Amino acid sequence: MRIKVLTIFPEMLRPMLEASILKRAIDAGLIEVELVDIRPFSELKHKNTDDYPFGGGPGMVMLAQPIVDAVESCTGEAFRGKRLYLSPRGRTFTQKMAEELSKEDELLLLCGHYEGVDQRAIDLVIDEEVSIGDYVLTGGELGALVIIDAVARLIPGVLGSDESSEDESFSSGLLEYPQYTRPREYRGLAVPDILLSGDHAKIARWRRDRALELTYQRRPELLENIEMDKKDRIFMQALRERHGEA
Amino acid sequence: MRIKVLTIFPEMLRPMLEASILKRAIDAGLIEVELVDIRPFSELKHKNTDDYPFGGGPGMVMLAQPIVDAVESCTGEAFRGKRLYLSPRGRTFTQKMAEELSKEDELLLLCGHYEGVDQRAIDLVIDEEVSIGDYVLTGGELGALVIIDAVARLIPGVLGSDESSEDESFSSGLLEYPQYTRPREYRGLAVPDILLSGDHAKIARWRRDRALELTYQRRPELLENIEMDKKDRIFMQALRERHGEA
Repeated sequence: MRIKVLTIFPEMLRPMLEASILKRAIDAGLIEVELVDIRPFSELKHKNTDDYPFGGGPGMVMLAQPIVDAVESCTGEAFRGKRLYLSPRGRTFTQKMAEELSKEDELLLLCGHYEGVDQRAIDLVIDEEVSIGDYVLTGGELGALVIIDAVARLIPGVLGSDESSEDESFSSGLLEYPQYTRPREYRGLAVPDILLSGDHAKIARWRRDRALELTYQRRPELLENIEMDKKDRIFMQALRERHGEA
Repeated sequence: MRIKVLTIFPEMLRPMLEASILKRAIDAGLIEVELVDIRPFSELKHKNTDDYPFGGGPGMVMLAQPIVDAVESCTGEAFRGKRLYLSPRGRTFTQKMAEELSKEDELLLLCGHYEGVDQRAIDLVIDEEVSIGDYVLTGGELGALVIIDAVARLIPGVLGSDESSEDESFSSGLLEYPQYTRPREYRGLAVPDILLSGDHAKIARWRRDRALELTYQRRPELLENIEMDKKDRIFMQALRERHGEA
């Protein structure tokens, strides 16, 4: 997968791409991330990339021209992918969307700044606005990194065979069960006996029940989309009764 | 505000703190961000920070001991703040939560990795788990940066007087209206006449209507929490009629 990130702060993003799992994926040739500086595309004498908003108001708006030219330089006729603009107005990014995007051959991520970008740039060269959450950030750079990280780890081969993207929160649709590692007792707190039992079926059941319970307590709306077997339903029935709900 | 970030990848985070608005806030002494490396706190010979999960399964789990000791070294008796763990199981981070956190004197952000951290570390030294969205990331570092960015820009003095945190998506509870800057016409697309009219009341009304319209189209659930005046209600009524809803 080839990802192009358009930003006025390419130097800010580079170190994050050189760390951890992303570095591994890039080194292995599984993904390729190109940071494209928008500023050199400006046709203005001082390579400005923003100006005051028409109609007044605080802040600056990013000019359409440098963005449109930068996007067009990255997306020739061969480009077959999505052009996304990171924006709090966009569709909320989810694990499901990460799975969809992980199947693309190419992605273009436009990072805005200031009070946003000229609407005409969005109208001309953006396929979709995407938001990583309901909060306001200084720019789109963190959003681009979030999307790259979430998508990259779903590309086959990026996670090692000793890792897993299947057992985690949202992959099963449930929040993840609690994890424990050595020592067996730490500051008076013991690892639950069942995890030391060696009984794989019982351990799997315990983990599934804990995941159901945590999701019920913290994000009950997620349970609506979960496929439950008979044992799940029995557990949930008991859980609801304990909470006086059924 | 003093923020401490506990991570096994401090070098990955540093460049992001040296860029853009965060650098300005740090230079101005408005916030102070300390990156705390968890690894030196490990009591194991090779300073390991993870081990296999009890009960089996893929991946590694971060050890309780280095985390608990690192947190305790950062939070002496004088610590008055929240200790947050970035985790997809956590409460979903929103602009409202950013506003609450911006009033704290201190914050501690724990970044996990691998399949998570030993549950006992969470039980012993974490006040709350926080998630920046419904997707899985390789580690908590991006989440920590998102929280720092969203919170920092709400601290008085961090944004310049020519900037604004009030007119943006989620601050008003609505998605932001479209912005335009020079030139008046670009590739055949003109700036809406009203923005050039100089009539501030009409411009404000047009922007409010566009924000209501965008929110209605993309995130209708957000409208439930909006205080509307009479003009808003008239506009929404017309909008719903146009969509055959009222």
